[in-house]
This record gives sequence, structure tokens and C-alpha cells, in this order.
Amino acid sequence: MKKLEDYVITIPDFPEEGIMFRDITGILKEARGIRLAEDQLMEKLEGVEFDAIVGLESRGFLFGMPMAYQMNKPFIPIRKKGKLPRETVERTYDLEYGTATIEVHKEDVSEGEKLVLVDDLLATGGTMEAACKLVESLGGKVVKILFLLELEGLNGRAKLEGYDVESIVKYEGK
Amino acid sequence: MKKLEDYVITIPDFPEEGIMFRDITGILKEARGIRLAEDQLMEKLEGVEFDAIVGLESRGFLFGMPMAYQMNKPFIPIRKKGKLPRETVERTYDLEYGTATIEVHKEDVSEGEKLVLVDDLLATGGTMEAACKLVESLGGKVVKILFLLELEGLNGRAKLEGYDVESIVKYEGK
Repeated sequence: MKKLEDYVITIPDFPEEGIMFRDITGILKEARGIRLAEDQLMEKLEGVEFDAIVGLESRGFLFGMPMAYQMNKPFIPIRKKGKLPRETVERTYDLEYGTATIEVHKEDVSEGEKLVLVDDLLATGGTMEAACKLVESLGGKVVKILFLLELEGLNGRAKLEGYDVESIVKYEGK
Repeated sequence: MKKLEDYVITIPDFPEEGIMFRDITGILKEARGIRLAEDQLMEKLEGVEFDAIVGLESRGFLFGMPMAYQMNKPFIPIRKKGKLPRETVERTYDLEYGTATIEVHKEDVSEGEKLVLVDDLLATGGTMEAACKLVESLGGKVVKILFLLELEGLNGRAKLEGYDVESIVKYEGK
């Protein structure tokens, strides 16, 4: 029986030499891959009290929405700047080269709301850290951060210290 | 009881004067909105034989993935150019100003595969038309096109003639 990690397609030297790119779309190619991914993410929420799933555009949308549907919770999208039509708050963070800005609708997060943040991959942790600060600026409380994959060699957990972070498949390298 | 259309937030004069922007993120804000949306989309597939759900980045990801999970089908992502790591085919199409290019992984679609394409909104139909041509170039067969919302005033159905197109909520205007 294939395990979840067997559905991940590894592409050596992409996008540059020395990087082993972990392609999560291999998980989507088979119904069983999707089921394994979602069920293992939801297992991590057993006994966790929370109000909404927050997904980061756009691969966090892929994995977060089935959880929201299945667990009967709202879904709050965090998007790249300029795509959300209502009033937003934004946060800019550093990338390897340059910066990026993400946004959330102001009225999507309420004071004290317990949030589970979902994305596909923990690499440096920069985007997720910015997402946490963003929802916290509206009074949201991050009760859990879930990743499908984690590249342990990039030490993204250091950036997310103090949060309850879990991932399903861990890779030692970068 | 609120109906699906009651969860859609209408923003007048966005992004420009005279446009009534239909914001689907209002559907996501409540668990019941998500459930209504997904269940009504899946109802349209009763009795339809198909092999995979195809979702268009990124709002098609939101609504397509819970369907794939729930119906035990693979999910094929169509993304904006430059984001898919394996070998792709691409298609460029016209926008009001300029052009856009979308891609799909070559090995994600196989000859004769029966596909259901999902997106949030039927406006001019340009993106969905390009998506159909894209999967057809790999031998895929479009058995159904599903939209959550449709702006009838833009006559997107004309561009999708010959396909089996359905939408859940219809608006007369643009």
C-alpha cells in the first residue's frame, strides 16, 4: 500500500541546482492520495477546539478547503495582495529576493476566534509567520499550524516558535 | 433559512464603476455556505460518469477540491504559467487588456479521460474556454463544466457552446 510520501514527486535541481523540489500535485493525481492527505491532516485536529480553517493561497486552498467542508467549519482565505475585494489588513515579509505582501479580509477574523492555519509546505516559515501575525492583528488566536510537508533542513520551526506546529511528511534536507 | 445566493456578498462599483462584484468569499465565511455550495455542485454530477475534477487556480481550487475529496476522484490543477514543476502544456488567451497563459501537467491528463471542470464564476468564459482546449490537447474529454455563479449579461455561454455547462446561482447583469 502506498503511503502519503509515495505520492509526493521529487524533482531534483528544480527550480535551481541542489534543490530537491517536492511536488505535492502528485498527491492530487490519485483519489487515494487526496484522501490520505486530508485524513491525516484532520487526525491532527482530533480533540482540538477551533472555529475556522485559514488557508494560504493557493496550495493551502487545496488542502484546507476539504477539511473545512468535512469538519463543518468556515474557511478564511489569505491571499496575495490585491485580490480580496472587501476591506483588508496586510502584512509584508521578506523573501530570499525582495518582499511579498499577503492580505486577509478584516471582517473574516473576529476577536478571540480560534484558528487553524493550513499550508502545503514548511520551508523557511516566512509566509506562515506573516500569516500568523496577520490574523493575530485582528484578534485571532492561532491554536494550530498544519503543514503537509516539512523541509527540516530549512529550520522553519524556529520562525514559528511558540506555536503548535505539526506536519505529516518530514524531509531531512532543504 | 439562508440560500446559497444569500452568502454571496455584492460589492457595487468594484473594481470599477458600474460593475457589481460578486464576492464568493462570503460563502466561505460560514460552514453552512460551504456545505450548500459543495453539495449543490455535487448534485449536478449525479449520474455523470467522470474520472477527475479539474480546478482552475485559485478559486476553482477552493470549490473543486472538496468535491474531489468527497467523491473520491483525482484533482487536476490548472495554474497560471510558471508554477507547475513538471512538464506542462500551456495555452494563451485574450483578456480585456492583454493576455494570460495557463498550464497543466502533461502527465496529469490521459487520452479519453472524462473530466469535470470547475471554477467559481462564469463571466466572459475566456479562461474556461482556454482550460477546455488545454485538457483536450492532451486527449481529455470535457463531460461537464460547473460554475458556482454565472453573470448572464456577459454571455460566457456563447464561448462555451457545445459543452455541458451548469451554474448554481445566476445573475442577469454583468
